[in-house]
Amino acid sequence: MSGTEAAAKTPSHGAGTRIRVIEVGPRDGLQNEKVRVPASAKVELVERLVDAGLRDVELGSFVHPKWVPQMADTAEVARRIRRVEGARYWALVPNQRGLEFAVQSGLDHIAVFLSSSETHNRKNINRSIAESLATVTEVTKTALGEGLTVRGYISTVFGCPYEGDVDFARVLDIGHALLNAGVVQISLGDTTGMGVPPQVRDGCARAVAAFGTEQVALHLHDTRGLGLVNAVQALEVGITSFDSSVGGMGGCPYAPGASGNLGTEDLLYMLDAMGYDTGVDLERVVAISRDLELEHGVTLSSKYFRYAGARL
Amino acid sequence: MSGTEAAAKTPSHGAGTRIRVIEVGPRDGLQNEKVRVPASAKVELVERLVDAGLRDVELGSFVHPKWVPQMADTAEVARRIRRVEGARYWALVPNQRGLEFAVQSGLDHIAVFLSSSETHNRKNINRSIAESLATVTEVTKTALGEGLTVRGYISTVFGCPYEGDVDFARVLDIGHALLNAGVVQISLGDTTGMGVPPQVRDGCARAVAAFGTEQVALHLHDTRGLGLVNAVQALEVGITSFDSSVGGMGGCPYAPGASGNLGTEDLLYMLDAMGYDTGVDLERVVAISRDLELEHGVTLSSKYFRYAGARL
Repeated sequence: MSGTEAAAKTPSHGAGTRIRVIEVGPRDGLQNEKVRVPASAKVELVERLVDAGLRDVELGSFVHPKWVPQMADTAEVARRIRRVEGARYWALVPNQRGLEFAVQSGLDHIAVFLSSSETHNRKNINRSIAESLATVTEVTKTALGEGLTVRGYISTVFGCPYEGDVDFARVLDIGHALLNAGVVQISLGDTTGMGVPPQVRDGCARAVAAFGTEQVALHLHDTRGLGLVNAVQALEVGITSFDSSVGGMGGCPYAPGASGNLGTEDLLYMLDAMGYDTGVDLERVVAISRDLELEHGVTLSSKYFRYAGARL
Repeated sequence: MSGTEAAAKTPSHGAGTRIRVIEVGPRDGLQNEKVRVPASAKVELVERLVDAGLRDVELGSFVHPKWVPQMADTAEVARRIRRVEGARYWALVPNQRGLEFAVQSGLDHIAVFLSSSETHNRKNINRSIAESLATVTEVTKTALGEGLTVRGYISTVFGCPYEGDVDFARVLDIGHALLNAGVVQISLGDTTGMGVPPQVRDGCARAVAAFGTEQVALHLHDTRGLGLVNAVQALEVGITSFDSSVGGMGGCPYAPGASGNLGTEDLLYMLDAMGYDTGVDLERVVAISRDLELEHGVTLSSKYFRYAGARL
């Protein structure tokens, strides 16, 4: 195959396709920051992210504050936010009690979660996968009964820091169970950034084939620098929803070595450059990150932010 | 196209192919560091990089020390290095006088350079492209006459910080001229990291089609976070030689906003993960970067290094 033939073949899939970027920084990013960010700043953060064009923002979690103190004010944040028509405000919910808090806070989009690794699930949630699946299914059913929309995170799908390899067939089984229970979308979490390109490509292709494009999102971490490369692999096999974190904030507190969700700016810059449509104003997101860093001393690892933020 | 069909199609090109990684950190990296690194440390750096398996290392430059003070001791470094059979030790050479220094230092691999943007060339070298091309051609001829091997850098091929777009036809013209003059390989420099995936793919495909795989290298900067994504685009159209810098050290001193050559560790980790063969021991490179950072206070931006170096 000559170079020019190859060049002519590939980039066509991108141009014009709408990509949904799910902003998880206010939850998955902030929950791992040591500096405490006040509720008023979180409210402003979420509002500015929506104003920049993001239509899905995860604003917090109802996990017990003993485990994730940074998220203790999620109810307050949820209640204070100025809502924008068409935007979806998500919160992470671990159980029925968390769901009650979410409903009381006026939220109608929640995310449930479990791991595809027994050891990671036990360390993170203190249960077996089967037990977690039972809880998550029950919470989803209750939520649907109350008219809510539910998303389902599956963690460590491309590798577990404790167990190493994860059988992707198990990921697909969990995905089936979640979608059967009524979640609108599963999010495949590369929780500690262990995924490598051929593996991510293969896993995403299998998930899209099994469940459909709209039903699958990819949640990448850039721990070892492969975040965007893995995103391209996923795009090429039909993934059109990606979780990312403003400025690249955050990681997984229970996974050694994890640092850095895929940065929203890195993802947006690449998608723009490849001709995808995101509906998000990148430079406004950069300004949000810059203010986060200046005002709250969080550590932001997004390379595009480090480049563009320095020029503001 | 369904997900599984797409997955079956692509990753085959990688497995087993030998990729040549040209380590430019001791020159392109260090020359942009404010901290002064003594000659003895540079000697050790180059020797350790070769011991880690790198077979092409650019150890310094004979540009006038007034312009690049960090490189003032290149002759000493070149003379002191313990040579390993099969390794190539390169130095950057701007003119006939630089070539004389290189020869006197016992080097037999040199790199010449010019820009594909008139404004960048003038700011960097204070000449027109035509004038630079005449000098570079003359230096190459003299070097070949003395039995040396010559490589040719072309800068700003995917965009100039002063002029913006660069016509890739001009890059190909310069490439033709350099290869006709006798350079063994041209290195396409994305000097300030402006290249985006479809453009890098197209340019690399055109260069490989025009000159052949062995004749073309890609020199990426990770300024905006697209370094590895662009590398994959290049791999897919037949590029098999990449310049990179240990730890992601360095940038271009005359280009505003430039920071960070593509990190050698990031490149190696990705190539390993995709099944390419590099012949380099990644973890030894990580250890070299860690010592560079600890002992000399240089700033290293490679994400894989930041992850793996912290665990040593």
